[in-house]
Amino acid sequence: MAKPDQPKSAISPRRTEDFPEWYQQVIKAGDMAESSDVRGCMVIKPWGYGIWENMQRALDAMFKATGHKNAYFPLFIPLSYLQKEAEHVEGFAKECAVVTHHRLELNAEGKMVPASPLSEPLVVRPTSETIIGASYAKWVQSYRDLPILINQWANVVRWEMRPRLFLRTTEFLWQEGHTVHETEAEARAETKQMLDVYETFVRDHLAVPVYTGEKSESERFPGAVQTLCIEAMVQDRKAIQAGTSHFLGQNFSRSSGIQFQTRDGKQEFGWTTSWGVSTRMIGTVIMMHADDDGLVLPPRIAPTHIVIVPVTPKPETRDAVLAATNDLAAQLRAISWHGAPLEVHVDQRDLGGGVKNWEWIKKGVPLRVELGPRDLESGNVAVTRRDDDNKAKAFLPAAEFVSRATELLDAIQQNLLDRALAFRDEHTRKIDTKDEFYAFFTPQNAAKPEIHGGFALAHWNGSRAVEEQIKNDLKVTIRCIPFDDPAQPAESGKCIMTGEPSARRVLWAKSY
Amino acid sequence: MAKPDQPKSAISPRRTEDFPEWYQQVIKAGDMAESSDVRGCMVIKPWGYGIWENMQRALDAMFKATGHKNAYFPLFIPLSYLQKEAEHVEGFAKECAVVTHHRLELNAEGKMVPASPLSEPLVVRPTSETIIGASYAKWVQSYRDLPILINQWANVVRWEMRPRLFLRTTEFLWQEGHTVHETEAEARAETKQMLDVYETFVRDHLAVPVYTGEKSESERFPGAVQTLCIEAMVQDRKAIQAGTSHFLGQNFSRSSGIQFQTRDGKQEFGWTTSWGVSTRMIGTVIMMHADDDGLVLPPRIAPTHIVIVPVTPKPETRDAVLAATNDLAAQLRAISWHGAPLEVHVDQRDLGGGVKNWEWIKKGVPLRVELGPRDLESGNVAVTRRDDDNKAKAFLPAAEFVSRATELLDAIQQNLLDRALAFRDEHTRKIDTKDEFYAFFTPQNAAKPEIHGGFALAHWNGSRAVEEQIKNDLKVTIRCIPFDDPAQPAESGKCIMTGEPSARRVLWAKSY
Repeated sequence: MAKPDQPKSAISPRRTEDFPEWYQQVIKAGDMAESSDVRGCMVIKPWGYGIWENMQRALDAMFKATGHKNAYFPLFIPLSYLQKEAEHVEGFAKECAVVTHHRLELNAEGKMVPASPLSEPLVVRPTSETIIGASYAKWVQSYRDLPILINQWANVVRWEMRPRLFLRTTEFLWQEGHTVHETEAEARAETKQMLDVYETFVRDHLAVPVYTGEKSESERFPGAVQTLCIEAMVQDRKAIQAGTSHFLGQNFSRSSGIQFQTRDGKQEFGWTTSWGVSTRMIGTVIMMHADDDGLVLPPRIAPTHIVIVPVTPKPETRDAVLAATNDLAAQLRAISWHGAPLEVHVDQRDLGGGVKNWEWIKKGVPLRVELGPRDLESGNVAVTRRDDDNKAKAFLPAAEFVSRATELLDAIQQNLLDRALAFRDEHTRKIDTKDEFYAFFTPQNAAKPEIHGGFALAHWNGSRAVEEQIKNDLKVTIRCIPFDDPAQPAESGKCIMTGEPSARRVLWAKSY
Repeated sequence: MAKPDQPKSAISPRRTEDFPEWYQQVIKAGDMAESSDVRGCMVIKPWGYGIWENMQRALDAMFKATGHKNAYFPLFIPLSYLQKEAEHVEGFAKECAVVTHHRLELNAEGKMVPASPLSEPLVVRPTSETIIGASYAKWVQSYRDLPILINQWANVVRWEMRPRLFLRTTEFLWQEGHTVHETEAEARAETKQMLDVYETFVRDHLAVPVYTGEKSESERFPGAVQTLCIEAMVQDRKAIQAGTSHFLGQNFSRSSGIQFQTRDGKQEFGWTTSWGVSTRMIGTVIMMHADDDGLVLPPRIAPTHIVIVPVTPKPETRDAVLAATNDLAAQLRAISWHGAPLEVHVDQRDLGGGVKNWEWIKKGVPLRVELGPRDLESGNVAVTRRDDDNKAKAFLPAAEFVSRATELLDAIQQNLLDRALAFRDEHTRKIDTKDEFYAFFTPQNAAKPEIHGGFALAHWNGSRAVEEQIKNDLKVTIRCIPFDDPAQPAESGKCIMTGEPSARRVLWAKSY
């Protein structure tokens, strides 16, 4: 329930009242996705999918600009392939959908049942290292065949017992890059390059600032030598992993048999990497930017940049208003922004202006424009930015709005990033004692267990035992071990738990 | 083996020697796709996938221009959903991959085996009418919610006992449109509109001329009231169905419960359609345009429009030649063709010019340009069109080539279409007697069973019995019943088998 001194909000509960439930309600109010009757599988509705398409388009261009090509590999993985890498199969065994039959038939009771059992069960890909490795083993003979730089856009399945829309679903959409290199150094450089691509993408397109670094051993991808990641702080101060890039060493090339003749005539196993981001990014954007009135979309990924709502109270001025809105839309659509025309929607539905306005607010459209009979006389339009107070209309001459539209969109994009960065920095603290660390991560209010300190930068002795104790006590984990940054040399100190020496602070947080 | 009077060809066997094997060899030589170890599942390699991406981009724009939006629905269909439409489940039962477990575990012998059986088996979607219908039933309440115009890009699985790359694979990629309408007339108009979109797309982008019409009852999509199709003739004179659009009546809305309140307050079931094209189109393009030297790509879908091969016989002129090729490439890339920049590749690999040239010939790149030291002096470049004799070089001043590049691409596109149309018309015959019909479809040469007449336009009494007899005798089926065309009124006559009256000729052929 809203307190008496608060204005009514479109989403109930508010973020501060019940963050997880608010998240679900934002998705519903924005008509982005819904659960299906198939356990853990979601339906991504057109508005949610439009956001995904924009993410795909931008990422795909960045992958191609770094020399990668797309390809497509089978959905099904023979069980024996998955087993070739021991850590890998163990990591995914608990969440594998398994195909065991390839036909249906009517049984004696007239019921359709599975028939024609397979001689070897097939696993629906949870990730494709092993099935892609089988192809690469055939493609690679010599160092001349390297590097292989391939990406795949695909659906994957990891059986999920506690699903949440976009964040954890049994089936999700993603891209997975899989590369093979001649040398370790080259593969490590690729791993880092693709993390940089992700960091740039989420900053410039999703307005999501991230910490970057390496995972500790316990949080690594099953089978990887090194997992790099980008970690964002969302509005409940928890961390969300927004993308990972893995240096796989020769583990998978050894198990798949990806071998090549080196420049000096020897046989060596290829050095491989893999890297991916998924529809989980949509969940990140929601938790990062949405407010108590619903979704707030970074303009770069909004399916619609500007919605125009004609206000037509009187039949006699209706035609003139509609003509003016369509004219305005045409002028805006002729404008190119970041390489594509502005996406402009005129909402001519026969509904009240308030109903229509609130629908677009809840969908997070960056700019709303109202145009009515009085505006025709004044030559003005009423413009509202979604990142401002939703009632704060600015009246601008229509021509000025047209000439400033992309500037406004850029300003919204920048504002969302600045806001997110300020929020994150405000809730990130260097902590040097166990007591302060435990207090930081202990909710102040038992009724709101989600409100705690945020991100802690603290020293760690490097042991798994310390990680486990902190995880058990506080549900807090190491999100990443920051990279060496020559501009900001690592600060040495003492582990907050054991007092043992530590070469650098690592990033701790509760996480999704 | 090539006959002594034939020049050597890049693909062996030739089309006339063994069409099915030639097809496989073209795919291999063009590095487009390969079979995986998973029965019936293919790996689409970057060159093949690049063609698919171009098809997707063009089709997606056409779907959006006709008011459709993309969305995404679950990969898995509960068995009970599939059973709701009796004809539908029967049509797909023999080819369903069935998920029965959601975990793997080590058994007593240390072997990973499926564990955690599902209470209800899940079918990997062979098509999505039933799973999408379950969502639509929730979304549709009133006529105000209609129409629903949604498309999905997805992978589907239909277990295939005799797989062939692109043509029949267990897993394939496709798009499936699923719409709901208020009236029968509107749904029928949508069904036809999307067939028209397919016809336009394959003509303008794939250079594939098609016959359009309706399927006979025996060839209809399981559960449809009417199936419309586009049918192309490939070089062995067989038909290939390149796309279908189904009017589903109220069959699926009844079984899924898609019900709405009408304008006059009654409850009615929605009128639905579905329509799709798949990676099979790539197979169509190959069989339609490829020649004895490999793939011939219609420029509109070629991943690379122009390849430039620098000829660098002497070290002292190498730098100048490379500079000139890169300069030429930059000029060409600055040119926009059909809304996107020309895709130009400079092949600087340290390989012989012949090796490189033949690789691009086999990949079907529309234009090849060679540039060597002598060309630097003359200012000319050597241009070869892939649709011409592959040795027919034209020497053009470089500037003239740049200014004429898009004109040449348009000419190649048109030539491929004209050629295909002429071939089809040459091998389509009106036939009025059973004897002529049987002779037409009987191979002249027992060693080459694929060579027969082609397409026959013949009268039919409308009975399934006649269809079955002809299918059993000749492996020939009705590909479509042509639409009424006011410009070319249907010609009535007598069934070639029974002499009974027939209102119009129908199209008969052997088919893929």
